[in-house]
Amino acid sequence: MDGTGTIPLPTFDDVLDAARRLAGHAVVTPLLNAPLLDAELGGRLFVKAEPLQKTGSFKFRGAYNRISRLTPAEKPAGVIAYSSGNHAQGVAAAAREVGCPAAVVMPKDAPPLKIARTKAFGAEVVLYDRYKDSREAITEALQRDRKCVLVKPFDDVHVIAGQGTVGNEIADQCAERGIEPDAVLVPVGGGGLISGSALALRHKLPRAEVFACEPENYDDTAQSLVAGKRVAVDARTPSICDALMSPTPGEITFDLNRRLLAGGFVVTEAEVRRAVAAAFVHFKLVVEPGGAVALAAILANRYLLRGKTAVIVCSGGNADPKLFAEIIAEAQ
Amino acid sequence: MDGTGTIPLPTFDDVLDAARRLAGHAVVTPLLNAPLLDAELGGRLFVKAEPLQKTGSFKFRGAYNRISRLTPAEKPAGVIAYSSGNHAQGVAAAAREVGCPAAVVMPKDAPPLKIARTKAFGAEVVLYDRYKDSREAITEALQRDRKCVLVKPFDDVHVIAGQGTVGNEIADQCAERGIEPDAVLVPVGGGGLISGSALALRHKLPRAEVFACEPENYDDTAQSLVAGKRVAVDARTPSICDALMSPTPGEITFDLNRRLLAGGFVVTEAEVRRAVAAAFVHFKLVVEPGGAVALAAILANRYLLRGKTAVIVCSGGNADPKLFAEIIAEAQ
Repeated sequence: MDGTGTIPLPTFDDVLDAARRLAGHAVVTPLLNAPLLDAELGGRLFVKAEPLQKTGSFKFRGAYNRISRLTPAEKPAGVIAYSSGNHAQGVAAAAREVGCPAAVVMPKDAPPLKIARTKAFGAEVVLYDRYKDSREAITEALQRDRKCVLVKPFDDVHVIAGQGTVGNEIADQCAERGIEPDAVLVPVGGGGLISGSALALRHKLPRAEVFACEPENYDDTAQSLVAGKRVAVDARTPSICDALMSPTPGEITFDLNRRLLAGGFVVTEAEVRRAVAAAFVHFKLVVEPGGAVALAAILANRYLLRGKTAVIVCSGGNADPKLFAEIIAEAQ
Repeated sequence: MDGTGTIPLPTFDDVLDAARRLAGHAVVTPLLNAPLLDAELGGRLFVKAEPLQKTGSFKFRGAYNRISRLTPAEKPAGVIAYSSGNHAQGVAAAAREVGCPAAVVMPKDAPPLKIARTKAFGAEVVLYDRYKDSREAITEALQRDRKCVLVKPFDDVHVIAGQGTVGNEIADQCAERGIEPDAVLVPVGGGGLISGSALALRHKLPRAEVFACEPENYDDTAQSLVAGKRVAVDARTPSICDALMSPTPGEITFDLNRRLLAGGFVVTEAEVRRAVAAAFVHFKLVVEPGGAVALAAILANRYLLRGKTAVIVCSGGNADPKLFAEIIAEAQ
């Protein structure tokens, strides 16, 4: 950790430390390529396939990196988290592997599949109303009562370092295969995945520009990068990208991102739907809408791939079956 | 090759030779696991994810192993093949990499996605009527006319050896991860994938029983294993498993399979549909119906996983979007 600022920031060494801790626990997800899509786009595109991660998203990485560091005294009371569904499953699965209880505060309109899977991984699920209740207040009350450890979804040194193993693996896989990416595009909610990944990419692939990708109405990081300070958006607008509905960047994540990122791209819901369908056809991968925003940014030419090489992260695959079926059917 | 029988049979060495030839061309597909499904089934299940192979199915392996052996004199006229769609794409993509022309004779009711992708990989597509025309006659006439090389879909030493790299990789990946499978279940059309894979598994995982999995109405290999000789089924019955509608086992493939396989499982279309939906939920993988028959055999308890460890091959992911959407929507 870097202790020079007011908040301790994670460093590249923290990412490497997380990679060692995750070895044998997290999946080293593959980097996929689709020759037909490359031919259409006139460039080379590689997909880091986090739907194939344990629990169906990258979130297991950060959760395991944090929860596996609980002290023996902390373990019996376990952990608590708030999440729309992917961090929830990551925390539940990591707590089960570490051997401690987990409770997760989830919006009652979270995708039913995500709620069911969080319970199946052994966590207690506490539901709240996204538009009326304060999830922070509910979580804090439970935390005080149970004396358990809060596992934040992104603004935590160990969570960021754990998610950063995605970027670390991308760099290693590119080196193994002789790929020299011009850009790496990453979906952004609170910014944990991209900030941790950018730490690793800055060291291992310094030539690659790292871009944040967000859905319309939740472009708080893109706006913040332009403003040079943390900007909040109105988080009451519904979105099919339920995983990315965070109203403002994290303090730690933005402190990293404002120095490490090249910029932010914003995509529409229609563009996200086309990306989900393209991942189905070209990569045979189930990607949930929030996980497909970086692919959407490529397909919608926010980043012009022609003549270039890019790596994108597809960050999660816990797609609601009904919505997924609708998207695939309309894409004919 | 083993020259003792009337037909030369591929050997384990041919599979190893194919693996060397495919290195850097084919994808070493991952072996996936889903903890929640394991908990439901009370055993350990690993999925060899061939939808993530180049062209979306294992067929690229055998096609490349054959086509990359064309002589300089054979290359200008190129290759011809008949296929319902996955071998077609494999041949088209392999011919493009080798740098020779390819023509593929396809049934006109093949999934439109498969026809479109075969063309996109650069092959000439010749359509025929599955229920009226003889694809063999059409193919032979074109072959004579053009003096090109026929790449058989399964009954060919190099094609079998190429598909066998799937089994070879399964064995290596199991060894790396300390997995000792009791059984390996493989989808079967003409039997190329399973016979080549069984050659490798017999050498590297001799304790694992290898089972053929087929859809109802196309259980020619299961029937042939029982009869001890090649049996034909009526190939006029429609099936959602378009990739597995071969009426009878190959001569070479059956000669291997009758000695190497432990038996055959047959699954219904309803069971296949449930397997496609389960692959969506648990593995975030797009699997076409024909590619999901081994998963179907596990989920339908044809092979009882409780207390056991099994590897299954999901052999292809070129699912028709409309059918896939219907299957996912009904699985709610």
